[in-house]
Formats: sequence, structure tokens, C-alpha cells
Amino acid sequence: MAKLYWEDFTAGQVIDCGRRLVSAEEIKQFAAEFDPQPMHLDEEAARATPAGGLIASGWHTCAILMRMIADGFLTESASMGAPGVEEVRWLAPVRPGDELAAQGTVLTTRASRSRPELGFVSMLYEVFNQQGTCVLTERCTQMLARRERVAEAARA
Amino acid sequence: MAKLYWEDFTAGQVIDCGRRLVSAEEIKQFAAEFDPQPMHLDEEAARATPAGGLIASGWHTCAILMRMIADGFLTESASMGAPGVEEVRWLAPVRPGDELAAQGTVLTTRASRSRPELGFVSMLYEVFNQQGTCVLTERCTQMLARRERVAEAARA
Repeated sequence: MAKLYWEDFTAGQVIDCGRRLVSAEEIKQFAAEFDPQPMHLDEEAARATPAGGLIASGWHTCAILMRMIADGFLTESASMGAPGVEEVRWLAPVRPGDELAAQGTVLTTRASRSRPELGFVSMLYEVFNQQGTCVLTERCTQMLARRERVAEAARA
Repeated sequence: MAKLYWEDFTAGQVIDCGRRLVSAEEIKQFAAEFDPQPMHLDEEAARATPAGGLIASGWHTCAILMRMIADGFLTESASMGAPGVEEVRWLAPVRPGDELAAQGTVLTTRASRSRPELGFVSMLYEVFNQQGTCVLTERCTQMLARRERVAEAARA
């Protein structure tokens, strides 16, 4: 049984998604696989770019946030996936040695009209570095099973 | 010198970003690092989920698209990064053995008012599987250097 269902999320609720240190090694590894641009790939090449040094691919920061969300609450929830992402803003660079902290704020919740077994939770995620600078914001809507429906199904 | 500058993009232009086969191995590897949910992590666990089998993390598909964009034109362009992503829709699951094809359509272009050295190109990316089903759409705005400004700087 999951610990968190749709009913457990309410507008205004803030969820701590923990902290995570970002290394040069993982920045370069992600870039080599998915985003081979000079500012992500190699320290020396990155110094010659406007970034002035190695910075993480924005998609890497999104992937790191996904892991923080998973560890923060999602793998303990009755998650039924997400239809997409409403917006991502890459506000400041993520550099080797940065310690990121993530939090999610519940913006709205609503039951699905067409699928009574689930509800939607609209979230704003914010990622901060060790200076308190917000490096990324992300708005997305997650689908979660409804506890009452799971309980009904179990009784049937 | 880059081959493509802001001036080389015009509304309506369609850019082929090639094809890419997705393996079970890479789906599980990405999931283990960034999105450890049962439908992404392991074939057997995935069969018990609504996905009915292993599917790629939506963030993995975004990262694969980033690589297709890089190989398609971005690493040959005077890219100056992107401020974020306007929208991602995960429309259909990506499964092991799928061959993805990506294309980008230029929606609008505009010069930056505050930074005369660059311009914005607003793109719609679409990713299709081998059945022609659209599995992902993504709208984002990319920043590119302006050729005329680079040429002026070279003359100065």
C-alpha cells in the first residue's frame, strides 16, 4: 500500500525534497550522453563560453530534481504519472560543488471528472543552491490514485 | 565559426533531428539514476503497473530529444542557451525497441531588445515513434547569436 494518496495533498502545502551535491563528474557524464555543448562537457572548453566555466545542462538539473521528488515523496505515493510539464525556468547556472535543495508547493488539487479513480495535484517545484539562489522552477501536474476508491475496490 | 546564426531561422521552417533507437538497458539505467519508479526500473515490476510493461521516464525522453536537437543542428549553431521550457506533453509511452524520430518547427523569431548580440527562436519539437504516434511535444525558446553582430565585432 502506498502511504500518500491524492487526498493527502492540499493547496499551500510545502514538501521538502531534501538536498543533493552536484559533481563535475556527473555534469560531464550527463552532457556526454545527452547535451554535448562545450559549457557542459569540459572545464577548459567551458571557460571560453559565456558561462565562464562548467555548468550543468538544464535537462540534467530537471533530471536531478526528478530524483529529489522521487526520494522526497513520490515513490511513497500512489503516483499514476504526469501528463507533462507546464513550465521550466532555468534561472541561474548549476556549477560543480553546488548543493541543491528542492521543495514542492501544492498549487491546486482537483478530482478527475473522467477517471474517478484519480485526482490531479498541480505543483510548483523550486530548486535553490547553497547561496539561496533559485536556480530552477518547474510547474507540473501529477496524477495520484484516490484513497477512497482504492479502499472501495479492496472491499468489493 | 558557427554555421547557423539567429538570422538562419525563419517561422515555418522544419528541421529534421534524425532518428534514435531506445533500448531497455538505457531506460533502466536512466531510471536507476533519476526516476526510480517501477514502470521505468524493471520489466517485471513494470508489468504490474498501469503501463503494463517497461516505459521510459518522461525526463529520459526529454533528454534523448535534447541529444537529437544537439546532433540535429544545435552544436553547429551559435547557441547561447535557453531560458527554460514553455511546455512538455508526454502523449504516449516510449517502450524498449522504439525508434524515435524528432523534428523541430520554428514558431517565431525575434531580436532581443536588451541584448543586441542575440535573438530568440521559439521552437515546437515533436517526437514520433515508428508507428507515427507522437509521443512528446515540447515548446521552448532558444537564444542564438546574431551573425551581423558577430561580423561587426570581427571588423572592429
